Amino acid sequence: MQSISPDMQHCIDDCLHCYRTCLQESMNHCLEAGGRHVEPAHFRLMTNCAEICRTAASFMLSNSPVHAVVCAACAEVCKACADSCEQIGEMDECVRACHACMQSCASMAQGAGQGFTQPTPLQDRLPM
Amino acid sequence: MQSISPDMQHCIDDCLHCYRTCLQESMNHCLEAGGRHVEPAHFRLMTNCAEICRTAASFMLSNSPVHAVVCAACAEVCKACADSCEQIGEMDECVRACHACMQSCASMAQGAGQGFTQPTPLQDRLPM
Amino acid sequence: MQSISPDMQHCIDDCLHCYRTCLQESMNHCLEAGGRHVEPAHFRLMTNCAEICRTAASFMLSNSPVHAVVCAACAEVCKACADSCEQIGEMDECVRACHACMQSCASMAQGAGQGFTQPTPLQDRLPM
Amino acid sequence: MQSISPDMQHCIDDCLHCYRTCLQESMNHCLEAGGRHVEPAHFRLMTNCAEICRTAASFMLSNSPVHAVVCAACAEVCKACADSCEQIGEMDECVRACHACMQSCASMAQGAGQGFTQPTPLQDRLPM
Repeated sequence: MQSISPDMQHCIDDCLHCYRTCLQESMNHCLEAGGRHVEPAHFRLMTNCAEICRTAASFMLSNSPVHAVVCAACAEVCKACADSCEQIGEMDECVRACHACMQSCASMAQGAGQGFTQPTPLQDRLPM
Repeated sequence: MQSISPDMQHCIDDCLHCYRTCLQESMNHCLEAGGRHVEPAHFRLMTNCAEICRTAASFMLSNSPVHAVVCAACAEVCKACADSCEQIGEMDECVRACHACMQSCASMAQGAGQGFTQPTPLQDRLPM
Repeated sequence: MQSISPDMQHCIDDCLHCYRTCLQESMNHCLEAGGRHVEPAHFRLMTNCAEICRTAASFMLSNSPVHAVVCAACAEVCKACADSCEQIGEMDECVRACHACMQSCASMAQGAGQGFTQPTPLQDRLPM
Repeated sequence: MQSISPDMQHCIDDCLHCYRTCLQESMNHCLEAGGRHVEPAHFRLMTNCAEICRTAASFMLSNSPVHAVVCAACAEVCKACADSCEQIGEMDECVRACHACMQSCASMAQGAGQGFTQPTPLQDRLPM
Protein backbone atom coordinates (compact mmCIF):
# COMPACT_ATOMS: atom_id res chain seq x y z
CA MET A 1 0.00 0.00 0.00
CA GLN A 2 1.37 3.37 -1.06
CA SER A 3 2.17 5.64 1.86
CA ILE A 4 2.78 9.36 2.23
CA SER A 5 6.50 10.19 2.16
CA PRO A 6 8.20 11.93 5.12
CA ASP A 7 8.79 15.02 2.93
CA MET A 8 5.12 15.18 2.13
CA GLN A 9 4.10 14.66 5.77
CA HIS A 10 6.40 17.56 6.65
CA CYS A 11 4.78 19.72 3.99
CA ILE A 12 1.32 18.83 5.31
CA ASP A 13 2.51 19.94 8.78
CA ASP A 14 3.73 23.26 7.36
CA CYS A 15 0.47 23.81 5.47
CA LEU A 16 -1.73 23.12 8.48
CA HIS A 17 0.45 25.31 10.69
CA CYS A 18 0.26 28.17 8.19
CA TYR A 19 -3.52 27.71 7.80
CA ARG A 20 -3.93 27.86 11.55
CA THR A 21 -1.65 30.85 12.03
CA CYS A 22 -3.14 32.95 9.23
CA LEU A 23 -6.74 32.23 10.20
CA GLN A 24 -6.19 32.81 13.92
CA GLU A 25 -4.19 36.01 13.38
CA SER A 26 -6.61 37.51 10.87
CA MET A 27 -9.70 36.73 12.93
CA ASN A 28 -8.16 37.83 16.24
CA HIS A 29 -5.15 40.14 16.00
CA CYS A 30 -6.11 41.86 12.73
CA LEU A 31 -9.81 42.37 13.44
CA GLU A 32 -9.09 43.61 16.96
CA ALA A 33 -6.20 45.88 15.99
CA GLY A 34 -8.13 47.40 13.06
CA GLY A 35 -6.58 50.17 10.96
CA ARG A 36 -4.07 48.91 8.42
CA HIS A 37 -4.62 45.36 9.69
CA VAL A 38 -8.06 45.31 8.06
CA GLU A 39 -6.94 47.00 4.86
CA PRO A 40 -8.80 44.98 2.15
CA ALA A 41 -5.82 43.71 0.11
CA HIS A 42 -3.96 42.56 3.23
CA PHE A 43 -6.94 40.96 4.90
CA ARG A 44 -7.94 39.13 1.72
CA LEU A 45 -4.43 37.69 1.40
CA MET A 46 -4.53 36.40 4.98
CA THR A 47 -7.89 34.74 4.28
CA ASN A 48 -6.76 33.37 0.92
CA CYS A 49 -3.57 32.00 2.41
CA ALA A 50 -5.43 30.10 5.13
CA GLU A 51 -7.74 28.65 2.47
CA ILE A 52 -5.13 27.46 -0.02
CA CYS A 53 -2.92 26.01 2.76
CA ARG A 54 -5.86 23.94 3.94
CA THR A 55 -6.57 22.84 0.37
CA ALA A 56 -2.94 21.91 -0.34
CA ALA A 57 -2.92 19.82 2.86
CA SER A 58 -6.07 18.02 1.68
CA PHE A 59 -4.52 17.21 -1.67
CA MET A 60 -1.43 15.71 -0.04
CA LEU A 61 -3.41 13.85 2.62
CA SER A 62 -5.37 12.22 -0.19
CA ASN A 63 -2.20 11.20 -2.04
CA SER A 64 -3.48 13.22 -4.97
CA PRO A 65 -1.91 12.54 -8.37
CA VAL A 66 -2.18 16.29 -9.06
CA HIS A 67 -0.95 17.80 -5.81
CA ALA A 68 2.07 19.49 -7.44
CA VAL A 69 0.06 22.20 -9.17
CA VAL A 70 -1.83 23.02 -5.98
CA CYS A 71 1.39 23.12 -3.95
CA ALA A 72 2.83 25.52 -6.55
CA ALA A 73 -0.22 27.77 -6.17
CA CYS A 74 0.07 27.55 -2.39
CA ALA A 75 3.72 28.63 -2.52
CA GLU A 76 2.73 31.69 -4.55
CA VAL A 77 -0.06 32.71 -2.20
CA CYS A 78 2.16 32.17 0.87
CA LYS A 79 4.79 34.43 -0.69
CA ALA A 80 2.25 37.18 -1.35
CA CYS A 81 0.84 36.87 2.18
CA ALA A 82 4.32 36.95 3.78
CA ASP A 83 5.21 40.08 1.79
CA SER A 84 1.99 41.78 2.85
CA CYS A 85 2.51 40.81 6.51
CA GLU A 86 6.05 42.22 6.44
CA GLN A 87 4.76 45.51 5.07
CA ILE A 88 2.00 45.76 7.68
CA GLY A 89 4.34 44.87 10.54
CA GLU A 90 3.70 43.14 13.91
CA MET A 91 2.94 39.93 12.03
CA ASP A 92 6.17 37.99 12.63
CA GLU A 93 4.50 34.69 13.41
CA CYS A 94 2.55 34.81 10.15
CA VAL A 95 5.64 35.76 8.18
CA ARG A 96 7.52 32.77 9.59
CA ALA A 97 4.63 30.36 8.98
CA CYS A 98 4.16 31.62 5.40
CA HIS A 99 7.88 31.38 4.60
CA ALA A 100 8.14 27.83 5.93
CA CYS A 101 5.03 26.74 4.02
CA MET A 102 6.21 28.48 0.84
CA GLN A 103 9.53 26.61 0.92
CA SER A 104 7.92 23.21 1.59
CA CYS A 105 5.25 23.67 -1.04
CA ALA A 106 7.68 24.96 -3.68
CA SER A 107 9.87 21.95 -3.04
CA MET A 108 6.86 19.61 -3.23
CA ALA A 109 5.74 21.30 -6.46
CA GLN A 110 9.10 20.46 -7.99
CA GLY A 111 8.81 16.80 -7.15
CA ALA A 112 10.27 16.32 -3.68
CA GLY A 113 9.49 12.95 -2.19
CA GLN A 114 7.76 11.53 -5.24
CA GLY A 115 9.95 11.95 -8.26
CA PHE A 116 7.43 14.28 -9.88
CA THR A 117 8.80 16.55 -12.53
CA GLN A 118 7.68 20.13 -12.91
CA PRO A 119 4.41 20.10 -14.87
CA THR A 120 4.29 21.62 -18.32
CA PRO A 121 3.08 25.24 -18.07
CA LEU A 122 -0.68 25.54 -18.39
CA GLN A 123 -0.60 27.53 -21.62
CA ASP A 124 1.24 24.71 -23.43
CA ARG A 125 -1.33 22.14 -22.49
CA LEU A 126 -4.84 23.47 -22.43
CA PRO A 127 -6.74 24.07 -25.64
CA MET A 128 -7.80 27.71 -25.36
CA MET B 1 -16.23 50.15 -4.58
CA GLN B 2 -14.63 47.46 -6.72
CA SER B 3 -17.06 44.83 -7.92
CA ILE B 4 -16.67 41.33 -9.30
CA SER B 5 -16.71 41.35 -13.11
CA PRO B 6 -19.34 39.40 -15.09
CA ASP B 7 -16.59 37.07 -16.40
CA MET B 8 -15.51 36.32 -12.87
CA GLN B 9 -19.10 35.78 -11.69
CA HIS B 10 -19.50 33.32 -14.55
CA CYS B 11 -16.32 31.52 -13.52
CA ILE B 12 -17.55 31.33 -9.91
CA ASP B 13 -20.78 29.76 -11.24
CA ASP B 14 -18.79 27.17 -13.19
CA CYS B 15 -16.58 26.38 -10.18
CA LEU B 16 -19.50 25.89 -7.82
CA HIS B 17 -21.35 23.78 -10.40
CA CYS B 18 -18.29 21.58 -10.90
CA TYR B 19 -17.73 21.30 -7.12
CA ARG B 20 -21.33 20.24 -6.67
CA THR B 21 -21.32 17.76 -9.54
CA CYS B 22 -18.03 16.07 -8.62
CA LEU B 23 -18.86 15.77 -4.94
CA GLN B 24 -22.40 14.51 -5.52
CA GLU B 25 -21.35 12.02 -8.20
CA SER B 26 -18.40 10.63 -6.23
CA MET B 27 -20.36 10.27 -3.00
CA ASN B 28 -23.45 8.81 -4.66
CA HIS B 29 -22.94 7.31 -8.11
CA CYS B 30 -19.32 6.18 -7.65
CA LEU B 31 -19.65 4.75 -4.14
CA GLU B 32 -22.87 2.96 -5.04
CA ALA B 33 -21.64 1.61 -8.38
CA GLY B 34 -18.33 0.41 -6.90
CA GLY B 35 -15.80 -1.41 -9.08
CA ARG B 36 -13.78 0.88 -11.32
CA HIS B 37 -15.75 3.85 -9.95
CA VAL B 38 -13.91 3.56 -6.63
CA GLU B 39 -10.51 2.89 -8.16
CA PRO B 40 -8.16 5.01 -5.98
CA ALA B 41 -6.66 7.31 -8.64
CA HIS B 42 -10.09 8.11 -10.12
CA PHE B 43 -11.85 8.62 -6.82
CA ARG B 44 -9.08 10.86 -5.52
CA LEU B 45 -9.31 13.05 -8.62
CA MET B 46 -13.06 13.45 -8.14
CA THR B 47 -12.49 14.47 -4.52
CA ASN B 48 -9.59 16.76 -5.39
CA CYS B 49 -11.57 18.42 -8.17
CA ALA B 50 -14.48 19.21 -5.85
CA GLU B 51 -12.03 20.70 -3.33
CA ILE B 52 -10.05 22.94 -5.69
CA CYS B 53 -13.22 24.17 -7.45
CA ARG B 54 -14.59 25.25 -4.09
CA THR B 55 -11.31 26.95 -3.25
CA ALA B 56 -11.08 28.75 -6.58
CA ALA B 57 -14.63 30.03 -6.06
CA SER B 58 -13.65 31.34 -2.62
CA PHE B 59 -10.66 33.20 -4.04
CA MET B 60 -12.79 34.90 -6.67
CA LEU B 61 -15.65 35.68 -4.26
CA SER B 62 -13.11 37.42 -2.04
CA ASN B 63 -11.75 39.50 -4.95
CA SER B 64 -8.38 37.95 -4.24
CA PRO B 65 -5.32 39.69 -5.69
CA VAL B 66 -3.83 36.22 -6.29
CA HIS B 67 -6.78 34.32 -7.74
CA ALA B 68 -5.05 33.71 -11.11
CA VAL B 69 -2.63 31.09 -9.80
CA VAL B 70 -5.44 29.21 -8.06
CA CYS B 71 -7.63 29.34 -11.18
CA ALA B 72 -4.69 27.93 -13.15
CA ALA B 73 -4.35 25.06 -10.68
CA CYS B 74 -8.11 24.49 -10.82
CA ALA B 75 -8.01 24.27 -14.63
CA GLU B 76 -5.30 21.58 -14.39
CA VAL B 77 -7.18 19.52 -11.84
CA CYS B 78 -10.44 19.81 -13.82
CA LYS B 79 -8.63 18.57 -16.92
CA ALA B 80 -7.22 15.56 -15.06
CA CYS B 81 -10.62 14.77 -13.54
CA ALA B 82 -12.42 15.08 -16.91
CA ASP B 83 -9.88 12.73 -18.52
CA SER B 84 -10.32 10.19 -15.73
CA CYS B 85 -14.12 10.40 -15.94
CA GLU B 86 -14.00 9.85 -19.71
CA GLN B 87 -11.89 6.74 -19.24
CA ILE B 88 -14.16 5.34 -16.53
CA GLY B 89 -17.31 6.02 -18.54
CA GLU B 90 -20.91 6.79 -17.45
CA MET B 91 -19.71 10.11 -16.05
CA ASP B 92 -20.95 12.49 -18.74
CA GLU B 93 -22.30 15.10 -16.35
CA CYS B 94 -18.95 15.30 -14.57
CA VAL B 95 -17.05 15.50 -17.84
CA ARG B 96 -19.22 18.43 -18.96
CA ALA B 97 -18.92 20.25 -15.62
CA CYS B 98 -15.14 19.76 -15.54
CA HIS B 99 -14.66 20.94 -19.12
CA ALA B 100 -16.74 24.08 -18.55
CA CYS B 101 -14.88 24.88 -15.33
CA MET B 102 -11.50 24.19 -16.95
CA GLN B 103 -12.22 26.64 -19.76
CA SER B 104 -13.49 29.39 -17.42
CA CYS B 105 -10.62 28.98 -15.00
CA ALA B 106 -7.95 28.84 -17.70
CA SER B 107 -9.37 32.03 -19.15
CA MET B 108 -9.47 33.66 -15.70
CA ALA B 109 -5.88 32.55 -15.06
CA GLN B 110 -4.84 34.40 -18.18
CA GLY B 111 -6.41 37.62 -17.04
CA ALA B 112 -9.99 37.63 -18.31
CA GLY B 113 -12.14 40.32 -16.79
CA GLN B 114 -9.41 42.04 -14.86
CA GLY B 115 -6.55 42.81 -17.17
CA PHE B 116 -4.26 40.47 -15.27
CA THR B 117 -1.24 39.26 -17.15
CA GLN B 118 -0.08 35.68 -16.95
CA PRO B 119 2.02 35.33 -13.79
CA THR B 120 5.73 34.63 -14.08
CA PRO B 121 6.32 30.87 -13.78
CA LEU B 122 6.98 29.80 -10.20
CA GLN B 123 10.54 28.67 -10.82
CA ASP B 124 11.57 32.15 -12.02
CA ARG B 125 10.29 33.83 -8.92
CA LEU B 126 10.77 31.84 -5.77
CA PRO B 127 14.17 31.55 -4.14
CA MET B 128 14.69 27.79 -3.95
CA MET C 1 -29.71 4.04 -6.42
CA GLN C 2 -30.68 6.50 -3.70
CA SER C 3 -31.05 10.05 -4.94
CA ILE C 4 -31.11 13.42 -3.26
CA SER C 5 -34.69 14.59 -2.64
CA PRO C 6 -36.03 17.84 -4.15
CA ASP C 7 -36.27 19.36 -0.63
CA MET C 8 -32.63 18.56 -0.02
CA GLN C 9 -31.56 19.93 -3.42
CA HIS C 10 -33.42 23.13 -2.55
CA CYS C 11 -31.63 23.31 0.81
CA ILE C 12 -28.26 22.80 -0.92
CA ASP C 13 -29.15 25.71 -3.22
CA ASP C 14 -29.97 27.91 -0.23
CA CYS C 15 -26.73 26.94 1.54
CA LEU C 16 -24.54 27.65 -1.45
CA HIS C 17 -26.33 30.96 -2.08
CA CYS C 18 -25.84 31.99 1.55
CA TYR C 19 -22.17 30.88 1.49
CA ARG C 20 -21.61 32.94 -1.63
CA THR C 21 -23.44 36.01 -0.36
CA CYS C 22 -21.79 36.09 3.08
CA LEU C 23 -18.28 35.52 1.74
CA GLN C 24 -18.61 38.05 -1.07
CA GLU C 25 -20.19 40.71 1.14
CA SER C 26 -17.68 40.31 3.96
CA MET C 27 -14.65 40.33 1.69
CA ASN C 28 -15.90 43.21 -0.47
CA HIS C 29 -18.57 45.42 1.06
CA CYS C 30 -17.52 45.00 4.71
CA LEU C 31 -13.75 45.33 4.24
CA GLU C 32 -14.18 48.31 1.94
CA ALA C 33 -16.76 50.09 4.09
CA GLY C 34 -14.76 49.55 7.29
CA GLY C 35 -16.00 50.97 10.60
CA ARG C 36 -18.76 48.90 12.18
CA HIS C 37 -18.65 46.53 9.19
CA VAL C 38 -15.32 45.15 10.41
CA GLU C 39 -16.30 45.02 14.07
CA PRO C 40 -14.85 41.66 15.23
CA ALA C 41 -18.04 39.92 16.40
CA HIS C 42 -19.92 40.85 13.22
CA PHE C 43 -17.12 40.00 10.83
CA ARG C 44 -16.52 36.65 12.51
CA LEU C 45 -20.19 35.74 12.16
CA MET C 46 -20.11 36.55 8.45
CA THR C 47 -17.04 34.32 8.03
CA ASN C 48 -18.48 31.56 10.20
CA CYS C 49 -21.77 31.63 8.33
CA ALA C 50 -20.07 31.22 4.95
CA GLU C 51 -18.07 28.29 6.35
CA ILE C 52 -20.93 26.34 7.92
CA CYS C 53 -23.20 26.89 4.89
CA ARG C 54 -20.52 25.37 2.68
CA THR C 55 -20.11 22.47 5.08
CA ALA C 56 -23.85 21.81 5.34
CA ALA C 57 -24.02 21.76 1.53
CA SER C 58 -21.20 19.20 1.44
CA PHE C 59 -22.99 16.95 3.92
CA MET C 60 -26.17 16.99 1.87
CA LEU C 61 -24.36 16.55 -1.46
CA SER C 62 -22.73 13.45 -0.01
CA ASN C 63 -26.08 12.02 1.14
CA SER C 64 -24.67 12.00 4.64
CA PRO C 65 -26.44 9.85 7.23
CA VAL C 66 -25.71 12.59 9.78
CA HIS C 67 -26.61 15.75 7.86
CA ALA C 68 -29.42 16.70 10.26
CA VAL C 69 -27.13 17.78 13.09
CA VAL C 70 -25.03 19.91 10.74
CA CYS C 71 -28.13 21.49 9.19
CA ALA C 72 -29.32 22.32 12.73
CA ALA C 73 -25.97 24.00 13.48
CA CYS C 74 -26.15 25.86 10.17
CA ALA C 75 -29.63 27.18 10.99
CA GLU C 76 -28.31 28.54 14.31
CA VAL C 77 -25.32 30.27 12.74
CA CYS C 78 -27.47 31.74 9.95
CA LYS C 79 -29.83 33.15 12.57
CA ALA C 80 -26.96 34.76 14.49
CA CYS C 81 -25.49 36.18 11.28
CA ALA C 82 -28.84 37.56 10.10
CA ASP C 83 -29.39 39.25 13.47
CA SER C 84 -25.93 40.81 13.35
CA CYS C 85 -26.43 42.00 9.76
CA GLU C 86 -29.76 43.60 10.69
CA GLN C 87 -28.10 45.49 13.56
CA ILE C 88 -25.22 46.68 11.38
CA GLY C 89 -27.55 47.78 8.57
CA GLU C 90 -27.02 48.04 4.78
CA MET C 91 -26.75 44.25 4.63
CA ASP C 92 -30.19 43.39 3.23
CA GLU C 93 -28.94 40.81 0.74
CA CYS C 94 -27.14 38.92 3.51
CA VAL C 95 -30.15 39.07 5.78
CA ARG C 96 -32.35 37.58 3.06
CA ALA C 97 -29.85 34.83 2.20
CA CYS C 98 -29.36 33.94 5.88
CA HIS C 99 -33.09 33.82 6.58
CA ALA C 100 -33.77 31.58 3.58
CA CYS C 101 -30.93 29.24 4.51
CA MET C 102 -31.98 29.18 8.16
CA GLN C 103 -35.51 28.12 7.22
CA SER C 104 -34.36 25.39 4.81
CA CYS C 105 -31.76 24.03 7.19
CA ALA C 106 -34.08 24.04 10.19
CA SER C 107 -36.64 22.15 8.15
CA MET C 108 -33.98 19.69 6.95
CA ALA C 109 -32.76 19.23 10.53
CA GLN C 110 -36.26 18.19 11.50
CA GLY C 111 -36.42 15.53 8.84
CA ALA C 112 -37.84 17.16 5.72
CA GLY C 113 -37.51 15.08 2.60
CA GLN C 114 -36.14 11.98 4.24
CA GLY C 115 -38.39 10.96 7.06
CA PHE C 116 -35.66 11.61 9.59
CA THR C 117 -36.79 12.19 13.12
CA GLN C 118 -35.25 14.85 15.31
CA PRO C 119 -32.06 13.41 16.82
CA THR C 120 -31.85 12.86 20.55
CA PRO C 121 -30.25 15.93 22.19
CA LEU C 122 -26.48 15.61 22.54
CA GLN C 123 -26.49 15.62 26.33
CA ASP C 124 -28.68 12.50 26.46
CA ARG C 125 -26.41 10.48 24.25
CA LEU C 126 -22.75 11.20 24.77
CA PRO C 127 -20.88 9.86 27.79
CA MET C 128 -19.37 13.00 29.29
CA MET D 1 -7.02 41.43 23.35
CA GLN D 2 -9.07 38.27 23.79
CA SER D 3 -7.09 35.09 23.36
CA ILE D 4 -8.01 31.49 22.70
CA SER D 5 -8.13 29.47 25.94
CA PRO D 6 -5.86 26.43 26.49
CA ASP D 7 -8.95 24.17 26.46
CA MET D 8 -9.98 25.55 23.11
CA GLN D 9 -6.45 25.24 21.69
CA HIS D 10 -6.49 21.61 22.80
CA CYS D 11 -9.84 21.06 21.09
CA ILE D 12 -8.50 22.66 17.89
CA ASP D 13 -5.56 20.21 18.05
CA ASP D 14 -7.95 17.28 18.41
CA CYS D 15 -10.14 18.49 15.54
CA LEU D 16 -7.21 18.95 13.16
CA HIS D 17 -5.76 15.58 14.14
CA CYS D 18 -9.11 13.88 13.52
CA TYR D 19 -9.55 15.72 10.21
CA ARG D 20 -6.12 14.59 9.11
CA THR D 21 -6.57 10.99 10.24
CA CYS D 22 -10.02 10.50 8.69
CA LEU D 23 -9.09 12.09 5.37
CA GLN D 24 -5.77 10.25 5.06
CA GLU D 25 -7.26 6.88 6.06
CA SER D 26 -10.28 7.16 3.77
CA MET D 27 -8.27 8.30 0.75
CA ASN D 28 -5.46 5.78 1.27
CA HIS D 29 -6.31 2.76 3.43
CA CYS D 30 -10.01 2.56 2.59
CA LEU D 31 -9.77 3.16 -1.17
CA GLU D 32 -6.85 0.75 -1.48
CA ALA D 33 -8.37 -1.96 0.70
CA GLY D 34 -11.76 -1.75 -1.07
CA GLY D 35 -14.57 -4.10 -0.09
CA ARG D 36 -16.36 -3.09 3.09
CA HIS D 37 -13.96 -0.13 3.43
CA VAL D 38 -15.70 1.61 0.52
CA GLU D 39 -19.20 0.70 1.62
CA PRO D 40 -21.17 3.96 0.97
CA ALA D 41 -22.45 4.67 4.49
CA HIS D 42 -19.01 4.10 6.04
CA PHE D 43 -17.06 6.04 3.45
CA ARG D 44 -19.47 8.97 3.64
CA LEU D 45 -19.06 9.14 7.41
CA MET D 46 -15.28 9.22 7.08
CA THR D 47 -15.56 12.07 4.57
CA ASN D 48 -18.17 13.91 6.64
CA CYS D 49 -16.10 13.57 9.79
CA ALA D 50 -13.01 15.07 8.16
CA GLU D 51 -15.13 17.97 6.90
CA ILE D 52 -16.88 18.87 10.16
CA CYS D 53 -13.65 18.55 12.16
CA ARG D 54 -12.00 21.05 9.85
CA THR D 55 -15.00 23.36 10.15
CA ALA D 56 -15.12 23.14 13.95
CA ALA D 57 -11.40 24.01 14.05
CA SER D 58 -12.06 27.05 11.87
CA PHE D 59 -14.84 28.26 14.16
CA MET D 60 -12.60 28.01 17.21
CA LEU D 61 -9.58 29.55 15.47
CA SER D 62 -11.77 32.53 14.62
CA ASN D 63 -12.96 32.90 18.22
CA SER D 64 -16.46 32.45 16.93
CA PRO D 65 -19.32 33.55 19.20
CA VAL D 66 -21.28 30.53 17.93
CA HIS D 67 -18.69 27.77 18.04
CA ALA D 68 -20.62 25.72 20.63
CA VAL D 69 -23.30 24.53 18.23
CA VAL D 70 -20.71 23.49 15.64
CA CYS D 71 -18.65 21.66 18.28
CA ALA D 72 -21.82 19.84 19.34
CA ALA D 73 -22.45 18.78 15.72
CA CYS D 74 -18.80 17.73 15.40
CA ALA D 75 -19.07 15.54 18.51
CA GLU D 76 -22.10 13.79 16.99
CA VAL D 77 -20.43 13.13 13.66
CA CYS D 78 -17.24 11.90 15.37
CA LYS D 79 -19.32 9.46 17.41
CA ALA D 80 -21.05 8.10 14.30
CA CYS D 81 -17.73 7.79 12.47
CA ALA D 82 -16.03 6.03 15.40
CA ASP D 83 -18.92 3.56 15.63
CA SER D 84 -18.72 2.83 11.91
CA CYS D 85 -14.93 2.39 12.05
CA GLU D 86 -15.27 -0.05 14.94
CA GLN D 87 -17.78 -2.12 12.98
CA ILE D 88 -15.59 -2.17 9.85
CA GLY D 89 -12.46 -3.08 11.82
CA GLU D 90 -8.75 -2.35 11.15
CA MET D 91 -9.43 1.34 11.75
CA ASP D 92 -8.00 1.74 15.25
CA GLU D 93 -6.22 5.02 14.58
CA CYS D 94 -9.45 6.58 13.28
CA VAL D 95 -11.42 5.28 16.23
CA ARG D 96 -8.94 6.85 18.66
CA ALA D 97 -8.86 10.17 16.80
CA CYS D 98 -12.67 10.31 16.60
CA HIS D 99 -13.12 9.48 20.30
CA ALA D 100 -10.61 12.13 21.39
CA CYS D 101 -12.23 14.76 19.16
CA MET D 102 -15.73 13.77 20.29
CA GLN D 103 -14.80 14.24 23.95
CA SER D 104 -13.09 17.61 23.38
CA CYS D 105 -15.89 18.93 21.21
CA ALA D 106 -18.64 17.75 23.54
CA SER D 107 -16.87 19.46 26.40
CA MET D 108 -16.42 22.64 24.34
CA ALA D 109 -20.10 22.52 23.34
CA GLN D 110 -21.03 22.57 27.01
CA GLY D 111 -19.00 25.65 27.70
CA ALA D 112 -15.49 24.49 28.63
CA GLY D 113 -13.00 27.31 28.71
CA GLN D 114 -15.45 30.09 28.06
CA GLY D 115 -18.27 29.88 30.52
CA PHE D 116 -20.77 29.22 27.77
CA THR D 117 -23.98 27.57 28.80
CA GLN D 118 -25.65 24.88 26.74
CA PRO D 119 -27.65 26.61 23.98
CA THR D 120 -31.41 26.38 24.00
CA PRO D 121 -32.52 23.51 21.73
CA LEU D 122 -33.16 24.61 18.17
CA GLN D 123 -36.86 23.85 18.19
CA ASP D 124 -37.46 26.27 21.10
CA ARG D 125 -35.81 29.15 19.32
CA LEU D 126 -36.46 29.16 15.63
CA PRO D 127 -39.79 30.33 14.23
CA MET D 128 -40.87 27.43 12.02
